[in-house]
Amino acid sequence: MRTLITNIGELTTNEGPVLRDAAVLLEEGLISWVGGADEAPDADAIVDADGRAVIPGFVDSHSHLVFGGDRAAEFEARMAGQKYAAGGIRSTVAATRAATDDELRARLRGFIDEMHAQGTTTVEIKSGYGLDVETEERLVRLAAEVTPEVTFLGAHVVPVEYVDDPDGYVDLVIGSMLEACAPHAKWIDVFCETGAFTVEQSLRVLEAGTARGLVPRVHASQLGPGAGVLLAVELGAASIDHGTYLTDADIEALAGSDTVLTLLPGVEFSTRQPYPDARRLIDAGVTVALACDTNPGSSFTSSMAFCIAVAVRDMGMTPAEAIWAATAGGARALRRDDIGVIAPGRRADLVLLKAPTRIHLAYRPGVPLVERVWKDGVQVA
Amino acid sequence: MRTLITNIGELTTNEGPVLRDAAVLLEEGLISWVGGADEAPDADAIVDADGRAVIPGFVDSHSHLVFGGDRAAEFEARMAGQKYAAGGIRSTVAATRAATDDELRARLRGFIDEMHAQGTTTVEIKSGYGLDVETEERLVRLAAEVTPEVTFLGAHVVPVEYVDDPDGYVDLVIGSMLEACAPHAKWIDVFCETGAFTVEQSLRVLEAGTARGLVPRVHASQLGPGAGVLLAVELGAASIDHGTYLTDADIEALAGSDTVLTLLPGVEFSTRQPYPDARRLIDAGVTVALACDTNPGSSFTSSMAFCIAVAVRDMGMTPAEAIWAATAGGARALRRDDIGVIAPGRRADLVLLKAPTRIHLAYRPGVPLVERVWKDGVQVA
Ligand SMILES: [Zn+2]
Ligand SMILES: [Zn+2]
Repeated sequence: MRTLITNIGELTTNEGPVLRDAAVLLEEGLISWVGGADEAPDADAIVDADGRAVIPGFVDSHSHLVFGGDRAAEFEARMAGQKYAAGGIRSTVAATRAATDDELRARLRGFIDEMHAQGTTTVEIKSGYGLDVETEERLVRLAAEVTPEVTFLGAHVVPVEYVDDPDGYVDLVIGSMLEACAPHAKWIDVFCETGAFTVEQSLRVLEAGTARGLVPRVHASQLGPGAGVLLAVELGAASIDHGTYLTDADIEALAGSDTVLTLLPGVEFSTRQPYPDARRLIDAGVTVALACDTNPGSSFTSSMAFCIAVAVRDMGMTPAEAIWAATAGGARALRRDDIGVIAPGRRADLVLLKAPTRIHLAYRPGVPLVERVWKDGVQVA
Repeated sequence: MRTLITNIGELTTNEGPVLRDAAVLLEEGLISWVGGADEAPDADAIVDADGRAVIPGFVDSHSHLVFGGDRAAEFEARMAGQKYAAGGIRSTVAATRAATDDELRARLRGFIDEMHAQGTTTVEIKSGYGLDVETEERLVRLAAEVTPEVTFLGAHVVPVEYVDDPDGYVDLVIGSMLEACAPHAKWIDVFCETGAFTVEQSLRVLEAGTARGLVPRVHASQLGPGAGVLLAVELGAASIDHGTYLTDADIEALAGSDTVLTLLPGVEFSTRQPYPDARRLIDAGVTVALACDTNPGSSFTSSMAFCIAVAVRDMGMTPAEAIWAATAGGARALRRDDIGVIAPGRRADLVLLKAPTRIHLAYRPGVPLVERVWKDGVQVA
């Protein structure tokens, strides 16, 4: 089965310049050809893009999709003036522990459908709302049913049972919890922040995960500057995520490393934090990804287009940079070279927009602009 | 045909408190009954809301939907640092004059479909991209094909042909242009702002429109403080729109009047203007509406949910206030008492959300949360 998408008004490949009046051939789940519409090869099925834009599927490299309940009331209270506190995570932990596998699975599949409909074709999913061995194992296992990009985040926050013995909780995380979760996961993550885990505790978690074959990624500098970024760079983490508060030393270290900085504009939007200056970061040579951080506490959006619009408005990114960060940047943050780019041999993950240019994703904030979505060559929305 | 929407988890009626576990009966285009799901009357068709929230259809009281072309490149340049100038309107004027009726009509119908899909059941549409008698007449005529809320805005900006004779252009607007447009319009509007029309010119336009039976509404205080708000209040305008820069005297005058203040957060978002402090305005007693101002220059969103999310985050409105402003507030701004409220005898314009509470519209920014939409009792999305 060869499907040709043709009459593409603007094709963003993330490899070389944007193409006009282009076509892409999808074959056995991969892209097999890219070129001008007037030189397109034969195909079994033709999709006429009618002059509209095509971009790579969004790669959302940071989410927390397996949880119970929501925190709408907490959001409402925060918007009325109450400050965001990481401790709010614990209310989601209680709801998640109380939920059955099938309840969590149904919710998770709903989010995946919602993301497909918004153009996201790859999503990373973290555990971290279980915080006990049994529930964390359930969360990574359920996440692995829908994505290969599964992150064990037992060290999300210290659960109430260990509030007087955080090091004891770290022992649990790197002991039997890691043992139970590692078989389902690819990544090890820790929330290295005041109110969550110290640098020393974070190092223990990341080293234990690495010893089990997991690759590090780190939540850091969300609520204030901290040593988490430098730790992540030293350990060769794939990504540090948040980076709302970065020091000059952090920026220099990131720019000289292979560690991606994953910015999460939904968090700053939904917690009224100041936005990081992506313009300065990109100009300094940092590789920036954009992700939604979908979670019920600090950022419940699942719209990569919304994140792009905010990144352009409030973080100084150009539309082209923001879209790169939401596609190829996310792929870098997941150390994937088979996605995020439209080129022969890559996975056939693409989005046909209801718009003539990709700029419209920022120019028309909040408007659903996704017309059709293919993942591995199969239409998923 | 009696359609019952039942098992509504949260029903916002805009008349009294929110109802839980509620039901609404739709009959011959109107709402005929509202109450508890357990006391619902019989019906020919049942829609099970399954615990989700229902709100009145959005009333978007300010848009410019009849135009040719777009200004994506101008938007991109502005985001890279170039300032917004009202003169950019002229490029849309050239594209609009060049478009055929059928081209404009197809575009317009596309926007209406897009709005329905996002929960908007009533939209006001302005002319103002013609700026000559023939084209302005086409614009109000085409707008009248899709909404009764048509506004003649010949005084949007002075066209290039009259740049040295703005008063001559006002003569045209209040002469043969008004003559041609008034039969299709309900409202008369003017952009009273430095760079557009003076207070004296605005007064001439509004008085001439009023004499032809049109009711005034005014664009004012978008780019800086000005006398447009006081003028609008004195003339008993239904609404002043923008209000990004208001003086204490403006706020006092609005609070003591029947004139609604229509805030347009998409404009501040897309032009990086400071947001007006809706909290202060509401606390001062001003009646606030929210609208999209969909137009290719300063705000190309058509998402009322996006405007609600921004109003909550950046303007200090509660989710309940923002949703009221986007429904009942818009109805007030259009002097309509048949829409914006879910109560017996009102039009059956409702939105079933993909969410358990209306808070989610702000809590989940950018996510398409509209499940089903009824306008006059007919499902339109
Ligand atoms: Zn996170
Ligand atoms: Zn306007």
